[in-house]
Amino acid sequence: MKIGFIGLGKMGAQMVARLQKAKHEVVVTDLDQAAVAAAAERGAIAAADRDALVAALPAPAVVWLMIPAQFVDSEIDALLTILPHGSIIIDGGNSDFRLTRKRAERCAMAGVELIDVGTSGGILGLKNGFSMMVGGDKVAFATVEPIIQALAQSEGYQYFGTHGAGHYIKMVHNAIEYGMMESYAEGFRLLKEGADYPGLDLGLIANVWQHGSIIASNLNSLSAQIFAANPELSGVEGFVAESGEARWALETARAQQMKLPAVQIALDVRRASEQGQINFATKVLAAMRHAFGGHKLNK
Amino acid sequence: MKIGFIGLGKMGAQMVARLQKAKHEVVVTDLDQAAVAAAAERGAIAAADRDALVAALPAPAVVWLMIPAQFVDSEIDALLTILPHGSIIIDGGNSDFRLTRKRAERCAMAGVELIDVGTSGGILGLKNGFSMMVGGDKVAFATVEPIIQALAQSEGYQYFGTHGAGHYIKMVHNAIEYGMMESYAEGFRLLKEGADYPGLDLGLIANVWQHGSIIASNLNSLSAQIFAANPELSGVEGFVAESGEARWALETARAQQMKLPAVQIALDVRRASEQGQINFATKVLAAMRHAFGGHKLNK
Repeated sequence: MKIGFIGLGKMGAQMVARLQKAKHEVVVTDLDQAAVAAAAERGAIAAADRDALVAALPAPAVVWLMIPAQFVDSEIDALLTILPHGSIIIDGGNSDFRLTRKRAERCAMAGVELIDVGTSGGILGLKNGFSMMVGGDKVAFATVEPIIQALAQSEGYQYFGTHGAGHYIKMVHNAIEYGMMESYAEGFRLLKEGADYPGLDLGLIANVWQHGSIIASNLNSLSAQIFAANPELSGVEGFVAESGEARWALETARAQQMKLPAVQIALDVRRASEQGQINFATKVLAAMRHAFGGHKLNK
Repeated sequence: MKIGFIGLGKMGAQMVARLQKAKHEVVVTDLDQAAVAAAAERGAIAAADRDALVAALPAPAVVWLMIPAQFVDSEIDALLTILPHGSIIIDGGNSDFRLTRKRAERCAMAGVELIDVGTSGGILGLKNGFSMMVGGDKVAFATVEPIIQALAQSEGYQYFGTHGAGHYIKMVHNAIEYGMMESYAEGFRLLKEGADYPGLDLGLIANVWQHGSIIASNLNSLSAQIFAANPELSGVEGFVAESGEARWALETARAQQMKLPAVQIALDVRRASEQGQINFATKVLAAMRHAFGGHKLNK
């Protein structure tokens, strides 16, 4: 099908490429005209701005948003003034599910459906397909399912229910991710700095773990690659900004008197790193995020 | 080659089967004569006791120990009285690396080499091969490498250095495992008990995560199977005994003024569960351990 795609950042640009490989027509725009030009060179239909993008789409339109969380409200409000009745907006970014619910109400008042998609896989998703958790109206989901299917890995997407369910599950996913990353980071720090067996090769260790151990994982596989290429994590300062999702999960749990102590500790460590409490473990966190998400290695 | 194998518990019995598949001759013994008989039925050479086992082996002998940590000292001491000079004992269990170093010294005084192997993979290892981290004398390692290679997954073993290195790395592995399990358990609890989206299907969620997400892992794959079979974790009480390794890692880190906060929290949660602080998260921990390690589900 023919859809619009707003946001050609490190994730968005690759998702557009994956949609094109599946023979979907993609009209793209971004504030960064160089990103638009690059997508156009790879076969996407360039639109100068939001208005041109909507004008280039059939009515009702389908528009995928892949933009930073702080711009989603204004982007949706602007789209609602120009989208034909019956259009569908898909928010594939890391939005707070509580905001997604409010946005879905605003969209509904304008005759537009909002589908929320939690997207995991990072910059490896282009090759392997993403893992996608979907919420929103079920009929609207069915309309856009071919798009989600093209982006996702086989068996890698699922509709989970009403508005916000996709972003809610992605929030929990990221909270788990925080705790897992912190666990690996602490372990690799002990291996690196422990006095008992100096000079251990962390890349070899992660590689052995990846072949048959209980802690084999995508994060461990990335770690093996990271340490093989840069065993000392040279050039990694170790500041790790928190990005919201673990904090939202803790807020959500706290509202029910539920504690998530490992997630809390992982968030605390990231906050402390921003205040300068850096060590080999926070460097591991930064290097992992860079490897899977393309996050900046340094401030 | 022909080796002795002492300890036919849930791990040991399967390791013997895997060795036999690779055409090694295995002489087995265990206090549990039924386990010995079962192994003999599958082609192992039964020995009534330790003396008979050593008598059935060529000299110098190779003997693999797969027994609970608290019996390793007495088993090694007994073996040292009967093993020929130049023999090799392999401790494949979860021994404290600090004890392994002392035991290696005692063995050396008796002309025997001690090889330590950290073994991960749990009860799935028979099919897929184990992940094995090896420490000890390098020449002795070379002698027993065919045995380790037969047990391990391809690329799933590595020699890491002097006595205790294998158990040390396995200790860190298990500390990471504690933190990872706690992270998943907290996330699944929020999904299960969160008021915002009641009735979410945890099995479906874990399955989507397993296909392309950053948190795909062996533990998540097990979770998908666990929740598909038993979504309420019925019959799981949620007591999770700590087994030592995370505690040793924390002691080792503390000796260098290093903190492992996520590992510490995971250990604290397990200790609290033993005191009755159980919830859906501790049930997830218990169900995971049962799935990968065959640990008892209940007290």
